[in-house]
Parts: sequence; C-alpha cells; structure tokens
Amino acid sequence: MNQSHRYCVIMCGGIGSRFWPYSRTNMPKQFIDFLGTGRSLLQMSYDRILPIVPKENIVILTNAQYADQVKAQLPDLTDNQILLEPARRNTAPCIAWAAYHIAAIDPEASMIVTPSDHLITREAEFERAVTDGFNFVEANDALLTLGIAPTRPETGYGYIQVGEEVEGAIHKVKTFTEKPNLELAQTFLRTGEFFWNSGIFLWKASSIINALAACSPDLNAVFESGRSEFGTDRERTFIAQAFPSCLSISIDYAVMERASNVYVQTVTFGWNDLGTWSALYDMSPKNRDGNVTQRCQVLAYNSTGNIFAVKDDKLIVVDGLNDYIIADSGDVLLICPKSQEQRIKQMVNDAKVNYGDKYL
Amino acid sequence: MNQSHRYCVIMCGGIGSRFWPYSRTNMPKQFIDFLGTGRSLLQMSYDRILPIVPKENIVILTNAQYADQVKAQLPDLTDNQILLEPARRNTAPCIAWAAYHIAAIDPEASMIVTPSDHLITREAEFERAVTDGFNFVEANDALLTLGIAPTRPETGYGYIQVGEEVEGAIHKVKTFTEKPNLELAQTFLRTGEFFWNSGIFLWKASSIINALAACSPDLNAVFESGRSEFGTDRERTFIAQAFPSCLSISIDYAVMERASNVYVQTVTFGWNDLGTWSALYDMSPKNRDGNVTQRCQVLAYNSTGNIFAVKDDKLIVVDGLNDYIIADSGDVLLICPKSQEQRIKQMVNDAKVNYGDKYL
Repeated sequence: MNQSHRYCVIMCGGIGSRFWPYSRTNMPKQFIDFLGTGRSLLQMSYDRILPIVPKENIVILTNAQYADQVKAQLPDLTDNQILLEPARRNTAPCIAWAAYHIAAIDPEASMIVTPSDHLITREAEFERAVTDGFNFVEANDALLTLGIAPTRPETGYGYIQVGEEVEGAIHKVKTFTEKPNLELAQTFLRTGEFFWNSGIFLWKASSIINALAACSPDLNAVFESGRSEFGTDRERTFIAQAFPSCLSISIDYAVMERASNVYVQTVTFGWNDLGTWSALYDMSPKNRDGNVTQRCQVLAYNSTGNIFAVKDDKLIVVDGLNDYIIADSGDVLLICPKSQEQRIKQMVNDAKVNYGDKYL
Repeated sequence: MNQSHRYCVIMCGGIGSRFWPYSRTNMPKQFIDFLGTGRSLLQMSYDRILPIVPKENIVILTNAQYADQVKAQLPDLTDNQILLEPARRNTAPCIAWAAYHIAAIDPEASMIVTPSDHLITREAEFERAVTDGFNFVEANDALLTLGIAPTRPETGYGYIQVGEEVEGAIHKVKTFTEKPNLELAQTFLRTGEFFWNSGIFLWKASSIINALAACSPDLNAVFESGRSEFGTDRERTFIAQAFPSCLSISIDYAVMERASNVYVQTVTFGWNDLGTWSALYDMSPKNRDGNVTQRCQVLAYNSTGNIFAVKDDKLIVVDGLNDYIIADSGDVLLICPKSQEQRIKQMVNDAKVNYGDKYL
C-alpha cells in the first residue's frame, strides 16, 4: 500500500491535572520532557509516526490555548496541520472533526488516531503493528483498536475481550468493559481473553464517519452540516460555532461500544499510558536507593520508593520519607503519598478555590 | 550615667548551617527576615539596642564575606563601625578585637556584647535589664552575663548556677556547665538555681582586657602587641596578619569559666536563640492545623506539626506528613523530620562532598 493516503491524528489537548504541579495548565504533560530524553511526549509521539505516515499527513488536534506550544515543539508542521479546538469536548467530537477534515482532503484516506502523552517502547514492533493495522482497515470497513496484553489487574483502564481471530493478531471484539472493579480485573487477567484498550485506533476516514452516522447521529449531524466547509478557508469559522455545541463524549462510548464492525489487534510493543505518578514510578529506572528522580539531584536518607519530579537542576535532601510523590514546579511544591495520588485532582481544585488560577 | 561611654558589639559572623537551606552561606540566618516582620534578625538586634547606646557607638563584628549584607541592612552605620574578621575564630578573638578597638577610641568605655541572631521579646524589660547591667559593670570591675530562667531541660545550652546575690537581680556565678545531659538538665531545672547563658555580656572594655590578660594570656598577647595600632589607619593591616593566628575559642572557655569576677544578672525578657528548627517551631504562631509557615502558602491534608520555610510566595500542598521540616531556598529543597534535625549539618557536608559549594 502506498503511504500517501495514510494519515495520523495526534490528540494533544489534555490538561494533565493528575501530574500537577509538575504538569501545569499552561504546560501539560504532553509538552514536558517527561522521561528526560530531550524530547517531549508529543515530540516522541510525532517521531514514532514519521516512518509510517508522510509528514504532511500528520494532523495535531489540540486546544486553542496550546497552539504556540505545538508550533514551537513541532516546527516542521504547517498551520494547516494543527487543528485548534475552541472548547474541550472529549475525544468523540475531536475525532469526528479530524475525520471530516481528512476526508475532505483525501476521500480515500485511512488514519491512525493516537494520544500524545503515552510511552511506547520497542518502536520497531510498533511500526510493524501499525502497518499491519493500516493494511487491515484499508482492505475492510473496520474500526480497529490496538489492545495491550495486561500485566496487572488495573482498575483504571478499559478492557476489551477478544472474539474470533480474523487474521494475524486481529480479532473481532466480543465486549468492552470500562474500569472494572478489582475482582473483575483479576478474573480478566486470569482468562487471557482481555486486553487493555490503548486508545490507539485505525480506520478509513469514511468508515469512522459512517460509524458516527450510525451510532451517534446527533454528533455526526453537527459535522455533516458543515461537509462543504471542511478543507476550505471557511472550516475554522464553521468549527468555531459548531464545535462548542457538541456533547462532551468519548469515542469509546460514542462509537466503539455500539458499532458492529469493531476489531482489536493485539500488540507486543511496550506501552504505558503514564496516567498516574505510580505508573511513572513503576516504569522508570530506580536509583540504588529505590527512588526515581526527574531532572533533579537527590540526597536520600532512610528514604525509598519516592518519585521526585522537579524543574531543572534542583537539589532535594530528604530524610525519613517513603513512597511519596515530591513534585516541584517552581512556585508550587507537592508532597503526597503515592497511595493518595487520586486526591491530587481535589487538591488542584482546593488550590483554585483558595488562590484562583495562579497556581494551576 | 551618661550614655556616651556605652558601646554595643553585635556579633554577626555565623554561617547558620543548622537552618540550611533556608539559611545559606551567602545569606545566613541573621540576615533573613526570619519572623516575617519586615526586619532581619540583625536589624532587629540593632533596633533593640538603639534606645540604650548611641548609634555611633554600635560596632558590628562580622566575617569579611558579609560586609555588603551588613552595609545594605544597616545603612546608617559608617564603615568604621563594621569590623571585618579575616577568618572565623569563634567568639573570644572577636570580642578581644572589639574590646581593644573600643578601648583605643574610649578608655572609659563600657560595652554590651550580643549575638545578632537571637529573638528577644518584651523589649522594655530588655532595655531596663541592660541599663541595670551597664550601671553595675561601670561601678565594678565585673564580667556580667545575662541569665535566662530555663523553661525546659534543654541539653544544647550552657547553664549558670547563681551564687550569692550582689544587688537586685545580680549574683556571683557559682558554676558554669556547658551542654549537660538530660538527667542533669532536669536536676538543674528543679533546683531553680540554674539559668541559661544567653551569650549576652556586659563589662568595661578595660575589665575584659584585664580578664583576657589573666585568663588567656596567649590570646591577649596577640592583641596587646598591636595596642598602638587600634583606632588608627593601621588597625586593619594589623588584624589581617594577627587575627588568623588566634586559636578558635569561645569567650566562655577563654574567660568566663576561668575568671573570678564573673556575675550573672537574671532577666525576665523573652528570649529564644532560634538555634534549631524545633525552637523556631515552638515559638512561632501555629496555623489552625498546627503547622508553622514562613513566607509561603500551605494547603495541608492530614498533616500537622510541620514547619514550612520557603522563599517568597510559593504554594506548598502536603498530604500525610507530620512533624517535618520543609525548607526550600529555590535551588535546594530539604524534607526532614524535626526529630532528625541534628543531622542537617551532616547533610550539608554530604551536599558539599557530592556537589561542591554550589548548594551551600
């Protein structure tokens, strides 16, 4: 298959509040060199797709407030490749816009949709899997998601139960289950039939538009009404009025859990959604003392199991602290047990109530 | 008594390593607005003595590296009032120099010697006590120290046992005991005969010089050999070569514990040497949640008994932390249980070994 009809949509509008204050509203997770590699997570996502999709076919979907960061981090892209959402509406409206936009440019387009803030390792396996996926969706009217073999009974993810094998690693989807309880997740893990939903999707632009029309007709109608505007100078004006009117809904709820032509490709590349401090701790290399440090020096006494994430070249000296998150953004310092990290969103909210937007 | 023969020596050369990193080598404790009053501890020491001693009779003894800070914080002083030590030699050489310097200017001088980094409250009582002390040492060949009624069995201080009362609150000294163990300190507290050595001394310049000659003849000989230089343009040249040759020794060891004409005046003003984080915590006003904050905002969850000392207007969010010191100087963050604060000096040393002087 010729690459020229292959497109990539990188979703880049998240605000990263779970990593506050290391990640801030004006500089969320995807724009941070989170792994100290010299490239941000967005840049790593872009680099990873370059061997697979022509550069001019890469489209970034992000909130309007991040336009400058995207341009600064991906200077090779033209302004036409950066679609700025005028409001936050979860993934379904975002993907619908991208599909209509790309279909207007290239009616034969196939596309991969990927988050910008996940970690993927073993990139050769990623490249091979995505190429297989493109070949499948180009030959079939199929909505394909990449499934990750689970390694723990994680309760924060969506699980996909695989059905009959269609070809290679590609199966029909039997069920979707969002955020199971621990007992259920443990059962899922034992059966070997369940895979994590990576949030990486492949399909033809025409296939996802057809599926939107069938599964979420109200949402689809918003974009269908602007069909003549996409790919023209009038597209942004249309989006400015139409996009905020969309319901905020995920593509999983809007389409994947309702459509009949849904497939999962089980993959073997390394994947981590970096969704929590604990996830970042688990996948990061540890110091001799069992601590993880991001961009800082640490002198640790009687302290292990901590993750230190600090701007620039700061020295942290810590005594008698175990299994904590220590995150410092310059004007905010967070010290919180890893086991309490689900409270961080509440803390961000409390900071907003007490101090306004200053520390967000 | 006419004030014009009364002098004040403020000792201002400490490096404040116990409060690292809030206090840094280039900005030690005495130069910090430690209590958030808008005045540094040095400035508060200066303000406190102004009603008692003529401004032009106030002399600051400090290390040469702090000349700029002293001038910036006390702009009313002339350069002649700031004596710059070319080396660190503890309090005895410092006081000997000050005494010879003042005696050369005014052979009839009496003087108070005071640290620059203690907290004193009830300043009217301080003024009354110091005036009484001046009157006593001007009428007698006496070495007088101010004694604080102890409120706890502190093992880090020197204790003075009072002997017979001479007049008012002034007694002969029976014994000095430096840093007793806990059991002894508890006994001291019970008897009511023991007072903390405040490190504030009064005497005539001639009395302390005579005492130095009798008790520490080697040290005295260094300064005696330069008798003709003090108060002249040659004083600093003389000090540059003579001062570094002195042994490093405290005035307590060099004179007070050996002389026979030693007296203690028990005083009633509030006193705290701010020698430890715990001392600062104990004397500071607490938030509703039992935390102390210095120059920062704190959102505390399940956290009490902590002291937060941070530069400027930072927000600290903390969960599940009790009885810790959290000190942040911008490029260094310390998190340490209050109970472990005696280890901070070792931590400073480790930081030096690992990173050089960068973080000191």
